[in-house]
Amino acid sequence: MPPFDVPEGDPFGPHNLPYGVFSPPGSADRTVGVRLGDHVLDAGAAAHALGSPYASLLARPTLNPLLAAGRTAWSDVRRALTAWVTVPAHRETVERFFHPLSEVTLHLPFEVADYVDFYASENHARNVGQIFRPDAADSLTPNWKHLPIGYHGRSGTVVVSGTDVVRPSGQRKAPTDTAPVFGPSVRLDIEAEVGFVVGVPSEQGSTVPLGAYRDHVFGLCLLNDWSARDIQAWEYVPLGPFLGKSFATSVSAWITPLDALEEARVAPPARTHELLPYLDDAREEPGGYDLRITVAINGHEVSECPFSTMYWTAAQQLAHMTVNGASLRTGDLYGSGTVSGPTERERGSLLELTWNGRDPLELPDGKRTFLEDGDVVTLSAWAPGPDGARVGLGEVTGRVVPAP
Amino acid sequence: MPPFDVPEGDPFGPHNLPYGVFSPPGSADRTVGVRLGDHVLDAGAAAHALGSPYASLLARPTLNPLLAAGRTAWSDVRRALTAWVTVPAHRETVERFFHPLSEVTLHLPFEVADYVDFYASENHARNVGQIFRPDAADSLTPNWKHLPIGYHGRSGTVVVSGTDVVRPSGQRKAPTDTAPVFGPSVRLDIEAEVGFVVGVPSEQGSTVPLGAYRDHVFGLCLLNDWSARDIQAWEYVPLGPFLGKSFATSVSAWITPLDALEEARVAPPARTHELLPYLDDAREEPGGYDLRITVAINGHEVSECPFSTMYWTAAQQLAHMTVNGASLRTGDLYGSGTVSGPTERERGSLLELTWNGRDPLELPDGKRTFLEDGDVVTLSAWAPGPDGARVGLGEVTGRVVPAP
Repeated sequence: MPPFDVPEGDPFGPHNLPYGVFSPPGSADRTVGVRLGDHVLDAGAAAHALGSPYASLLARPTLNPLLAAGRTAWSDVRRALTAWVTVPAHRETVERFFHPLSEVTLHLPFEVADYVDFYASENHARNVGQIFRPDAADSLTPNWKHLPIGYHGRSGTVVVSGTDVVRPSGQRKAPTDTAPVFGPSVRLDIEAEVGFVVGVPSEQGSTVPLGAYRDHVFGLCLLNDWSARDIQAWEYVPLGPFLGKSFATSVSAWITPLDALEEARVAPPARTHELLPYLDDAREEPGGYDLRITVAINGHEVSECPFSTMYWTAAQQLAHMTVNGASLRTGDLYGSGTVSGPTERERGSLLELTWNGRDPLELPDGKRTFLEDGDVVTLSAWAPGPDGARVGLGEVTGRVVPAP
Repeated sequence: MPPFDVPEGDPFGPHNLPYGVFSPPGSADRTVGVRLGDHVLDAGAAAHALGSPYASLLARPTLNPLLAAGRTAWSDVRRALTAWVTVPAHRETVERFFHPLSEVTLHLPFEVADYVDFYASENHARNVGQIFRPDAADSLTPNWKHLPIGYHGRSGTVVVSGTDVVRPSGQRKAPTDTAPVFGPSVRLDIEAEVGFVVGVPSEQGSTVPLGAYRDHVFGLCLLNDWSARDIQAWEYVPLGPFLGKSFATSVSAWITPLDALEEARVAPPARTHELLPYLDDAREEPGGYDLRITVAINGHEVSECPFSTMYWTAAQQLAHMTVNGASLRTGDLYGSGTVSGPTERERGSLLELTWNGRDPLELPDGKRTFLEDGDVVTLSAWAPGPDGARVGLGEVTGRVVPAP
């Protein structure tokens, strides 16, 4: 079966066409690839063969040039790619530039500039508040409903799906201990998130209003914000998470363009507090996405997290991030924050799923409170697409290896 | 007077030789420059003329290739430069590659990878604690003496000295207000810091012990971590500073190599708490620097901050930052945290100098609690050098311009 003829209902059919960077079999060269079913199209080679003007954006070792090209170019390239894999006249030319997905090496698809992580799920924030501040009058901090809380993470440790994650060591201190101890984290956790990839930069001193979101953001990926809860708990007051997060952040190898997610757009939850004008999206187009993220440990599904429940949208996060005049760069990445729905099996972290270890998960290979060495965590997701099809997001997977 | 013959006692004499990136008069091209007195040597052009093997590191538009070259190359290049500007046989060749400092354009000298900011001054941390948590039993948080507290900042908004800083807008909320308001920050502040520039990267999953500090860190600069205290106060619980800091961070145009600061090394303050082995520097070479940073507003000196009082050293900060396996990249920048000494006129922020606005500073042009539009802030510094000379650090200056 030629790669064009993906099975009916394949979530990576021609309605999807996510972008990545790969090396062909037997080569160390990197170039932009587009996924179709279980194959990868060498998009730059195809563009050259077809005399396409987009070869200069696609025959590149990273997505950054395409990201920087802007919304009109994004649409034009997507339209061209769709034609190449669906119009019979192009198919013969293009067919030889496909590789089976199983035979290529996938790389981090873009050079990450700044990485910001948000905290946009009300369910997640309330769960965390109840776990760590059980005596507080409100499980949310007073600012939570007024601004999308976020912080900067370490962009140099963002890795592509499939990269092993070394268990971090660090300081931890139980409230009853008199001094901290040092050692490998004993509360290694995941955070199931969606990551948004900025294409078009902005000037320092200017802002990016809500309505300009789609002029700047190219697409999205899945993201696992690995977290060492014990390290984080001891270090994070007063300046926030640092070593509890900075050891690794995994992203999917495929970036799904926003244009592939038109049918997935939904309104975010009703707002309970009046928003300042720069965040008030009542008159904007729907800012949420109906994505469902599945979390699996060693192949066993432990959670399904509904992204549609996120209180703050990606457009609001972008408007907030720039309202102080901070500039955007091509390759900026921002995470949604852990995606947790209202029910027990819709939570995006083990912290919540096991209620800080109180209620272990029963897996086929034993109980889990937090991650054990050798555990493989896999996030996968899909969204509704055109004509009842599903749009698949690239999975993000990683294996925990022991501390040295 | 030829540029070699800097006046006796010039803090930018041949014992200093900091590195920057400049454009010659009438050109937009960037190349590495070395400062001598009030002149800049086009180091790449000089290297080419002398047939030096270091031309490939110096005839570049950024310091990154030199940073990545490693400690042996750093020493070799410095030795060569010293010879070029001091040995008569080289002077005739090199003289034509000098430009007056006043005629060149200085640029951000390196591409910033990740930016981390620490909080290493005990005086600063205690002052902030007393101002914001007056009822707390201890002005330091319980973790402060056990680890160097830090967080990631926005590397995309690091700018070179001389760049205007636009007053940021954002949310603020007084405790007595029922909801936040939006507008230009009314508590815009400075933080006088030293920045450390990483040259040699490290692998993800590995650590950089205390003793490897000089194998990885190339040199240091002055750094002003502009801070909007009102925005910061409302946003920072629980995930730390974000928009209150991310709008701009200014660094000096000159990076002083560690080799120029040998005579400035001093032991840090006596440790009051036992340190975990990875931070215990009792048997290491002295980790502090005897730098004095002067803070001036519109040319009027308001503070002189002694860097030798910093509790945590740059080597400890590097060891801590990587102890969880986080990798380093060429161009990583980390700030020391605000430098504040024990007395009132040794404080590195207006927050402390005016005790959160309670005690305004009397300047020739009026009182100051926080910064006003048009204010020019300048940090300068020197350290002891060989034979009684001073080693000057490049100044970092910036003017506050009104919010749009």
